[in-house]
Amino acid sequence: MVKQDRSVRTRQTILSAAARVFEERGYQMATISEILTAAGVTKGALYFHFPSKEDLARGVIHAQDQVLPVPARGYKIQELTDTVMLHAYRLQTDPMVRAGVRLSLDQQAQGLDRSGPFAYWVEVVGALLDEARTKGELLPHAVPSEVADILVGSFAGVQAMSQAVSDYQDLLTRASNLLRYVLPGVTAPTVLAALDLTENRAHATAAELGLTPHAPTP
Amino acid sequence: MVKQDRSVRTRQTILSAAARVFEERGYQMATISEILTAAGVTKGALYFHFPSKEDLARGVIHAQDQVLPVPARGYKIQELTDTVMLHAYRLQTDPMVRAGVRLSLDQQAQGLDRSGPFAYWVEVVGALLDEARTKGELLPHAVPSEVADILVGSFAGVQAMSQAVSDYQDLLTRASNLLRYVLPGVTAPTVLAALDLTENRAHATAAELGLTPHAPTP
Repeated sequence: MVKQDRSVRTRQTILSAAARVFEERGYQMATISEILTAAGVTKGALYFHFPSKEDLARGVIHAQDQVLPVPARGYKIQELTDTVMLHAYRLQTDPMVRAGVRLSLDQQAQGLDRSGPFAYWVEVVGALLDEARTKGELLPHAVPSEVADILVGSFAGVQAMSQAVSDYQDLLTRASNLLRYVLPGVTAPTVLAALDLTENRAHATAAELGLTPHAPTP
Repeated sequence: MVKQDRSVRTRQTILSAAARVFEERGYQMATISEILTAAGVTKGALYFHFPSKEDLARGVIHAQDQVLPVPARGYKIQELTDTVMLHAYRLQTDPMVRAGVRLSLDQQAQGLDRSGPFAYWVEVVGALLDEARTKGELLPHAVPSEVADILVGSFAGVQAMSQAVSDYQDLLTRASNLLRYVLPGVTAPTVLAALDLTENRAHATAAELGLTPHAPTP
């Protein structure tokens, strides 16, 4: 038991270090020995958990992929909104999430399959939209898989723009604006009238889940 | 005259080489001496045109920023559509445009101000939306600057997703879908009914402007 706990902690330590190194240097320039130094673990421990740089990157990407389950809402579209706003909040506050998103968008990351995180998010968002469709929350012409593609792709760009323009200061506003302009085109009016699409959803949902901003990893 | 022509050609040769090197290696890893080798020009010529790596990157970004003027259409929103679809087409076919877009999204490009291209595109798209507003083509609640922000940010992400998922094969479809889902929420119904938002607009507009796909630079 104790041994297993320690193994989990070591894995987490390595991933945090990898996230920092990838974020600072990019996938291509980052080296395993830099990650080893940053993590302060033995070479054996690192290779036991992650045999290659690609495995380390996949581990970081996978850590941000963990969608935190938003509590059930009256409308599935509100759940979708809160899922998106919570991801924006985590991107602003959690270095691991930030590193994972950046790796997914790192066009110089040769040999790293970056289609996985997109496919994963399209599946999560698409499932919520399928349920919304079943419950009559969508307009007839809205195709869940298309809307999921648009939302996931658009969010990736909106976060990149926010990072370039304001170092993520304005991310919640931009994410809320994206939803305010896309959702009215696909949501039934009665549902739309009941939605809260403001940036408040980010902090409210994070608080509900007991999340606090991560202190920057030393 | 001849001298000036040659200078323009040299500048173009250097920019093409820089685009290739930046695209292959990323901003951070690319070196001026690699670009020098790829361009096959003298060191003096390179430094005359571009004193630093940052200047080279700005030159490549600026080259993709050149918005080709889409001929006037019956509706400003159609002009906006054609401008976006033409950019998608150029991204698919012109290595310089591709390198510029990637540099703007390269989060590891330390010391390179990447907010410029976003601001530039927001201005171009915002100006078209302002005109659309004046001509009564927008719904009352649509704020041109907000819509411009959404479209520019979303497009950046949609192209990144297309690159990661299909190496740009599906870019025109994704760009058309983005417009099909965002524009109905901001466009007056009579205008909307008259729009062509299909991916055909990309090739049609490119042909009108006499563009042909660039052969890959050797």
